[in-house]
Amino acid sequence: MISHPTRHAADGPAAAAIGLLAEQGYDATSVDDLADAAGMSRSTFFRKFGSKEDVVFADHERILRQVTDRLAETMLEPPAAIEDAALLVFNHHLRNPETSRARYELMQAVPALRDRELVTSHRYERAFVLHLLDRLPDAGTREYTAVAFAAAAVAVHNALLRRWLRTAPAQLAETADRDTSAELANELRALSGIFRPALLGTGPSAPASPAVVVTVLAGGADKDAILRAVGDALD
Amino acid sequence: MISHPTRHAADGPAAAAIGLLAEQGYDATSVDDLADAAGMSRSTFFRKFGSKEDVVFADHERILRQVTDRLAETMLEPPAAIEDAALLVFNHHLRNPETSRARYELMQAVPALRDRELVTSHRYERAFVLHLLDRLPDAGTREYTAVAFAAAAVAVHNALLRRWLRTAPAQLAETADRDTSAELANELRALSGIFRPALLGTGPSAPASPAVVVTVLAGGADKDAILRAVGDALD
Repeated sequence: MISHPTRHAADGPAAAAIGLLAEQGYDATSVDDLADAAGMSRSTFFRKFGSKEDVVFADHERILRQVTDRLAETMLEPPAAIEDAALLVFNHHLRNPETSRARYELMQAVPALRDRELVTSHRYERAFVLHLLDRLPDAGTREYTAVAFAAAAVAVHNALLRRWLRTAPAQLAETADRDTSAELANELRALSGIFRPALLGTGPSAPASPAVVVTVLAGGADKDAILRAVGDALD
Repeated sequence: MISHPTRHAADGPAAAAIGLLAEQGYDATSVDDLADAAGMSRSTFFRKFGSKEDVVFADHERILRQVTDRLAETMLEPPAAIEDAALLVFNHHLRNPETSRARYELMQAVPALRDRELVTSHRYERAFVLHLLDRLPDAGTREYTAVAFAAAAVAVHNALLRRWLRTAPAQLAETADRDTSAELANELRALSGIFRPALLGTGPSAPASPAVVVTVLAGGADKDAILRAVGDALD
């Protein structure tokens, strides 16, 4: 039996507001309209969500908190923890397709919202960097590698998310959503694989890791030349 | 003899405007003040720079064009081309320290400018991705690796740039600037090294590239075992 993931209850009012904004147009919708759609008074709406722009990103705030909580508690090694956190964000979008699509539609129409999305994205990236610097062995010497890995993970997440958001809903059965999630998991795992030696080091702090020999030669080098170069590199 | 790099003439008026904004405060400075500082009439200023916010990022537009031109013409293999392009941007900031620092000061004070900087940054990232997808062998299958590498390169550039901008000018002799540039070059080269196998693949599609041999063995393997494994890999 397939269990259908449910929308988080706290997203209800924000989801209704975002849906209305996408339907009526951002500029054509007043805060009174949004408060109505969210089923609350204008003052409650302001207190709860702040501005019209803020409500569009209300669930991002919640997910960002979830991400930082998850990272604070994780027992996973650092690269895997970042994979896990990025999937948490992605799966939130998959579980709330109407709201994510409505928000995407709004961003296409309103440049200021697109910029705000970039800022939000940057906050995830920052949370990833802070986690890596907290948990990596010799974090100080790997600062820029941590920065690079965090940015790369967020960029891959965003690229797959945009592809999913651009795909017409009719083409997306629930199985396709699961495939997309699995594809992101694969891409993130590959990325971790690329970065793992640089992030975790291969010194005595990771005694079980394999020895890696990388030798670069001029194109067309024959087997003897290559073996000689590798031998030299090991001396 | 040390040759002192010179500021690009086209930056003069924008640099004067940015300097005044940082000195007087963003909100306290009118477009008339800026036109005065830039040595032009209000209408010329508007035609040339657009809004008060636009002038803060005027040189970014020019550098972005330089980056896309350089990438269009480059003969470097894709990862090295990205290293080169990121250094071009960095060295522009090093050559214009007062303007870059004044802009950084403004961004600390005005959140909207900070957001705009993120957007600018994202445009460099996009230019890098497009170049990689244009030049990589089997680009289609490496799309997310290209996205990851571009984001990582930009993030490392930005992290080193911010560190340089936060350092008090008094501590930065010209030699220190050169060191910072060399440090970025090293970090970018390391990043290219991390990504190169995933970006370029190791198949026959890149006949002119150097032969790269990557051999993975159990930890503690001795020289003979490693040479045997490399030899086997080449058979």
